[in-house]
Amino acid sequence: MNALSNHKSIRKYKDTPIEPDVLEKILLAGIRASNTGNMQLYSIIVTQDKEIKNKLWEAHFEQKMVLEAPIHITFCADINRFNHWCKINNAEPGYDNFLWLYNATIDATLASQNICIEAENNGLGICYLGTTTYMADKIIDILNLPKGVIPVTAITLGYPNEEPPLTDRLPLDAVVHFEQYEPYSDKTIEKLFKEKENLESTKKLIALNQTTNLAQIFTSKRYKKADNIHFSNTFIETLKKQGFMNQ
Amino acid sequence: MNALSNHKSIRKYKDTPIEPDVLEKILLAGIRASNTGNMQLYSIIVTQDKEIKNKLWEAHFEQKMVLEAPIHITFCADINRFNHWCKINNAEPGYDNFLWLYNATIDATLASQNICIEAENNGLGICYLGTTTYMADKIIDILNLPKGVIPVTAITLGYPNEEPPLTDRLPLDAVVHFEQYEPYSDKTIEKLFKEKENLESTKKLIALNQTTNLAQIFTSKRYKKADNIHFSNTFIETLKKQGFMNQ
Repeated sequence: MNALSNHKSIRKYKDTPIEPDVLEKILLAGIRASNTGNMQLYSIIVTQDKEIKNKLWEAHFEQKMVLEAPIHITFCADINRFNHWCKINNAEPGYDNFLWLYNATIDATLASQNICIEAENNGLGICYLGTTTYMADKIIDILNLPKGVIPVTAITLGYPNEEPPLTDRLPLDAVVHFEQYEPYSDKTIEKLFKEKENLESTKKLIALNQTTNLAQIFTSKRYKKADNIHFSNTFIETLKKQGFMNQ
Repeated sequence: MNALSNHKSIRKYKDTPIEPDVLEKILLAGIRASNTGNMQLYSIIVTQDKEIKNKLWEAHFEQKMVLEAPIHITFCADINRFNHWCKINNAEPGYDNFLWLYNATIDATLASQNICIEAENNGLGICYLGTTTYMADKIIDILNLPKGVIPVTAITLGYPNEEPPLTDRLPLDAVVHFEQYEPYSDKTIEKLFKEKENLESTKKLIALNQTTNLAQIFTSKRYKKADNIHFSNTFIETLKKQGFMNQ
């Protein structure tokens, strides 16, 4: 099994610092990723300082791995740098809209995944932080992000101090369609999710959460509709404040 | 130089078909990528049929490589499958909002990048198609995407029939910030973009486009403000139609 198929999120890290040349190699792999029009509309913030990391830990719902990992990387969609370049070149940029937020989000994510894969190729472990968009406004303050810059995702990075098992996935034919999208019947859905529902870990989760089934853990415990709507709205407000929604 | 740092977008392909086992290996690498809550809110549409590819070629601004590449893959944010599973499990999903469009977009992109890297590891070439969001409504029709599914990005895939040079990138310190975001002065921006501006290829582009400088090619030729606003609005309308913007 190669590195790509062997990816596991790492939440426990050794103290071992990351060698500067390894860090540079990883970052260089990041900027080689494909990006729209080769405009590189992203910025990568590498945080090692304990005090700043402490604030990021608070923003990321106090997840312990943020404190423990020697390096924290925040990936941002960034039209600020490109706009600045346009303006000193007597060119009027028009990238402060949803289309370019979307393009820049994809490009920041491609760079982040290259960095994660190169990190794992060098024996390091990573964990993505979905809390980044939830707490975008706080992260903007902590990292001094100017208008035109918004955090997209973040990772913790360091040498692993755990060997977690491979996480389950739906069977390949659950997510891959050939030629066109194939509608799912109730029966197909039941079949595709059966393995996941029958895992020992799932049964334990259901007992712990006191729900009838796994789906209810997602909808009534982990990602509740009211929270989702709240964070959708705060994120949209933050995007407007950062100057991304002018259309 | 390893595969990651040696990525080049491939726009000319050999006729050689992609072996089914290679395709399966690549797709399996895709679904191993990190994803929010292990909900796998994406679908991967693999199109090989000539008639459907012909329609996709029209949607993707008639870029020749779409016809030429033996395989076309469309990556979609997909809450339809997960919602369906919730509903047959008496769980009320709340993912039809901007936050989860954003999460699902990131997850679809992580899967796409894993697929691209595994493809390149197997001697194949890829090219991302930024036209995907521009023409989302047409692609939805062509691929029969139901409500809850939106195309995020797409790639062409096949054995390379060209060896293009490595594309330039801004220097690493243009996009990487340490600890916090470091504001750019005019002088810094000039310095960071200098190498790009002085490339022979840039000089040729400026002569061809009859602009004063490179920045103006972006703002007045390639990605004009009026077009950006138009495509922002059509994409937002399509997202609403597909049921992603309820908050």
